[in-house]
Order: sequence, then C-alpha cells, then structure tokens
Amino acid sequence: MATEDNEVEDPRPLVLIHNLPSFKLPLQDRLITHFRLFDSLASPEASSVRALICVGPTPVTADTLDHLPSLRLVVGSSAGLDHVDLAECRRRGIAVTNSGDAYSENVADYAVALLLDVLRRVSAADRFVRSGLWPQMGEYPLGCKLGGKRIGIVGLGSIGSEVAKRLVAFGCTVAYNSRNKKPSVMYPYYANVHDLAVNSDVLIVCCALTNETHHIINKDVLTALGREGVIINVGRGALVDEKELVQFLVQGEIGGAGLDVFENEPKVPKELFALDNVVLSPHLAVLTPESFEALNKVIIANLKAFFSNKPLLSPFQQE
Amino acid sequence: MATEDNEVEDPRPLVLIHNLPSFKLPLQDRLITHFRLFDSLASPEASSVRALICVGPTPVTADTLDHLPSLRLVVGSSAGLDHVDLAECRRRGIAVTNSGDAYSENVADYAVALLLDVLRRVSAADRFVRSGLWPQMGEYPLGCKLGGKRIGIVGLGSIGSEVAKRLVAFGCTVAYNSRNKKPSVMYPYYANVHDLAVNSDVLIVCCALTNETHHIINKDVLTALGREGVIINVGRGALVDEKELVQFLVQGEIGGAGLDVFENEPKVPKELFALDNVVLSPHLAVLTPESFEALNKVIIANLKAFFSNKPLLSPFQQE
Repeated sequence: MATEDNEVEDPRPLVLIHNLPSFKLPLQDRLITHFRLFDSLASPEASSVRALICVGPTPVTADTLDHLPSLRLVVGSSAGLDHVDLAECRRRGIAVTNSGDAYSENVADYAVALLLDVLRRVSAADRFVRSGLWPQMGEYPLGCKLGGKRIGIVGLGSIGSEVAKRLVAFGCTVAYNSRNKKPSVMYPYYANVHDLAVNSDVLIVCCALTNETHHIINKDVLTALGREGVIINVGRGALVDEKELVQFLVQGEIGGAGLDVFENEPKVPKELFALDNVVLSPHLAVLTPESFEALNKVIIANLKAFFSNKPLLSPFQQE
Repeated sequence: MATEDNEVEDPRPLVLIHNLPSFKLPLQDRLITHFRLFDSLASPEASSVRALICVGPTPVTADTLDHLPSLRLVVGSSAGLDHVDLAECRRRGIAVTNSGDAYSENVADYAVALLLDVLRRVSAADRFVRSGLWPQMGEYPLGCKLGGKRIGIVGLGSIGSEVAKRLVAFGCTVAYNSRNKKPSVMYPYYANVHDLAVNSDVLIVCCALTNETHHIINKDVLTALGREGVIINVGRGALVDEKELVQFLVQGEIGGAGLDVFENEPKVPKELFALDNVVLSPHLAVLTPESFEALNKVIIANLKAFFSNKPLLSPFQQE
C-alpha cells in the first residue's frame, strides 16, 4: 500500500472521533497534539483505524463496527455505555473504556444537591420568593431533615461510593444494591432493589443501564419505597419506569423526586411541571469544567496505554 | 398576698410565652404538661413570672423587662438573639439561653444545599426545564465543581462546625473567622473577614448578628472575594451589606449568592429576581419537623434546669 510522505513523518496514531452532530468533544484541540484525528466512517482512514473516541451518547452499533475492520478500542466519554453494543465489541475482540472516575465526584455532588433540594424544597422556595409570594403568604411549608435518612444506593460503583461518602457526613445511613455484594464494603447489601426500597427512605439510582437494569425502578419498587419515599436519578432515564413514577408523583403515592435524566430526553413529562416536590434537571450532573479536564486526561491515558500495549486505565466494568 | 386554691395545688412553674402575633411556638401543647403558660405582659402573673420563652424574633427590650420585675431567665427559640437586649439582661442579672444545637444540622444542611445550588445551578436548571426551554436550547451552561473549593466560614460555632464537617466530605478545604481563634480547631484561622475572603472561593456566613458583626460582609470583603466568589448567608440579613451585594451581583463583580436571609424580610431586592446565579430562600434553613422536636427538648431542658437550680443547657454565647 502506497503511503504519502507526510503520513510517514507523522508519528501520531490515527484516532476516529465518532460523534452525533449535536455532541462535540470540547477537548478536540488538546487531542491533536497526541493523535491524528478524523471524524467520518466514510474516510479512507476508516479501514486502518485501530481506536475510536465515542463522544457522549453517539451509538456504536454492529453496523458502525462493520466500517472499521481494524478497530481494537472504543474509548467512551461517558460513565454509562448503553449506546455501545458491548456484546458485539466483545465478539469482535474490541476493548471498551468509559470515563472511569472522571465524572464521579461531580455526579455524586449533583445527586446530593438534588436530594437536598427535594427534602428542603430549595428550588420550590426560590420559585416562591421570585414570584413575590413571600410577603403575601408568610411562612413557607416545612421541609424535612437529611440527617437520619436511610439512603439506598442502586449501583455502588465509583459514583455510588462517592454519594455514600458524602451522605454519611450528613448523618445518613447507607445501604446498597448491585449485581454482587462487594467484599470490601461495610454498608449493608440487598440482593434486590425491592428489599432495598422497603428499608430505605431515599433511593439514589446511579447504576449502568443494561438489559437487566432497564426499569429497575418499577411499580413494585415505588410501592415498597412508600408515600414519604424519595427517588433521585442521576443514572439514565430508562432505569426508572417513568410512566409509573409520574403516576406515583401525581397521585401523592411517593414523597418526591430529583431527576437529572429522563426516558426520552429532552422531553420531560409535563405533569411534573406542576409539582413542587420534584426537581427537574437537564442531564447536567457531569457538566463542569473540572469534569471535562478529568475526562481529557482519562481519554488520552487510555489511548496512550493502548498504543503502547499497556493496561487500559478505565476498562468498562458494569456494577 | 392571697393565693387561689388552684394555684397552690398546681406544681407547674409559671412561664410567659412572649411572641409576636405572626410567630407561634408550634410546641405549646407539649409545654403545658410541664409549665403553667400565659402570654401577655399585661397579665397579673407578669409581676411574679421568673422565666419567659421568647418565640422567634419577638423583641425583648428594656421596656419588655420593665413589665417583668421577677424575671431571671429568657429562653430564646432561635440560634441568633439579636432581637434580645442582651446588655440589659446582663445588667439586670437575667440569664439568656438560645436554641443551642437544635437547629445546627438543619441550618448546615441548608447552607450546603444553597452552595451546591449556586455552583451547580440547580434551581436555575429546574426553571429552565419547567419553562420548556430544554428541547429548544439544548445544552445547559456549565456549573462548577464543589470539590477543591476553598471555603471560608464566618462564625465557626455550632452551625459553622457542622458546615465544615459536611464540606470536607466533598473535598473542600476550610478556613474560618470568628472573634477568637479556637484552640481545639485545626482549620486555619483568619483574624479578620477581609483576609479570609482573599483566601477563599466561598464565604459561608453563619455568625451571630451583633453591633460588631453588622455588615461584616461589606464592599471591601466582596471585592476581596472576587469575581468568581460566592456568598452564602444562613445567618441574618444584616450581616451582609445587602445594597452592596446587590450591586456586586448585578454588575457581575461577584460569582453568585445563596441567600436564606435578607435585611428587610420578607422584602427581597427585586434586582435579584432576574439573576440565575442567585438562589433566594424565605428564611427557612431551620424549618423542619426534626428542628422543632429538637428545639422542644432544648427549651424544656433549659426551663427544668432553671427551676431546679441546675446549670442551663444552652446559655447564649457569641461566636
């Protein structure tokens, strides 16, 4: 195969940036010091590229992979990789990495922020003041205390562990559900989410979305959580049966919810707009400059490790 | 002096409930099992009563005290007692208690909630979603990470200490200002708020309001805090020069503010209603059922200690 001079002289490995038009990688200009980037499956480079960066929720399907016969690495830029056909990657011997710990602290912070907001009604109180109601109505309805609440964490991975650490400092107790009991963790383990819900005041959903976890928060779990219970979702919308959740909230059969993710983003069920015990957020738990800086490091570290045959920094593992 | 039979038979000590019409003590029905309550300075009991409960911000002035020649104890129901003439109480040998630790955890939780909200734009994001803007506008502006922030706590009393404990769990560093350096505290101490502001990304104001702390957050301190700085106030409105703060916020000379208290409550400066980097809250940091339960215990414990000549549970001490 003929090779052009400038390619021979360029020692940077070739990397495909795979992104939907609406998702740009903010770090692209920093990557080009290390890698030769291109961004189309139709490029001539597609046949020889060994690594791709999957930006945000851009799908990586069997069809995508058919364009990339030499591919050996998918570098995800998110914590969850439900948009990547993991089984197909495995079958073809393609390694997959995710964002590792890059987002964990920011997402954990945001989960705590949503929980505090639901319990203490911060957003609703802000709305109350801005609408000029304070002088007319006087005292505002009581919130409730975070300390002493029994927190059930659904998915005790990197994010869930950071959530637990924070909430213990507020005087909460923590228990968790995940696919397997973690030997090094002291918090009580529940093998199924229903039992966790029975024994919790709050469920914080931060597991990966897979076939097994789709609608893991269903009608039974919501019933078990009970009328005072609170759901926080910083994972993926489809972890929760949204239609059921909306019903429970509208009928007052659950205490409240803090939702950063939805089943059909950016669509949010309109019934929720009227509720003061719900905090709605446009999938921004990861969105800070500090996150992107950390992500940049993880992506570059994974690519460098791959191209020098060293162990990957953050191979994707499901919790 | 003639004494009626039913008074002789009633062993419960006499206690005056001193309250503005708009502030009711929610615990009154629990107090009557221990104390004989009355609520008017004009009652015949006023001349002999030895203890009063001051509800919320109801003023206790020299004039109030003139009606109560036998008074020896003022039991406050709030953390700050700027509405009580402390000098006059001292002069007359009247002891004063406050809410002790009853509110501290709830107020600390709320300070963290406001800070997370300002940094991560939770209330503004909720407004964004509810107004239907998400599908039209797409991605939401970046917030910023709590971890790593340098937190300056103004007044490291019971509330400030709880704030510090929580924020350390988020990976923040903590320093403080108070009247005196606290020997048992490891956090760096700054003898004045200006120096604390120079070395902080965030100031959390939770000291008592006194002549010395009035407008402790002034133009100089705001300038020292800088364009990215954030002010959280869960103390009293007059701790901050509100007019200056509004100017700084409107002109973008400070990063944001989370305000539970204001100089002329329930009036809130209207200029703030247009700002997304400000969270406004109607003085509710203490308002939870758990707070009131704890307050009930503190009030009863102080009264019982007083009437049995034991040390008071929460004598008022300024930080």
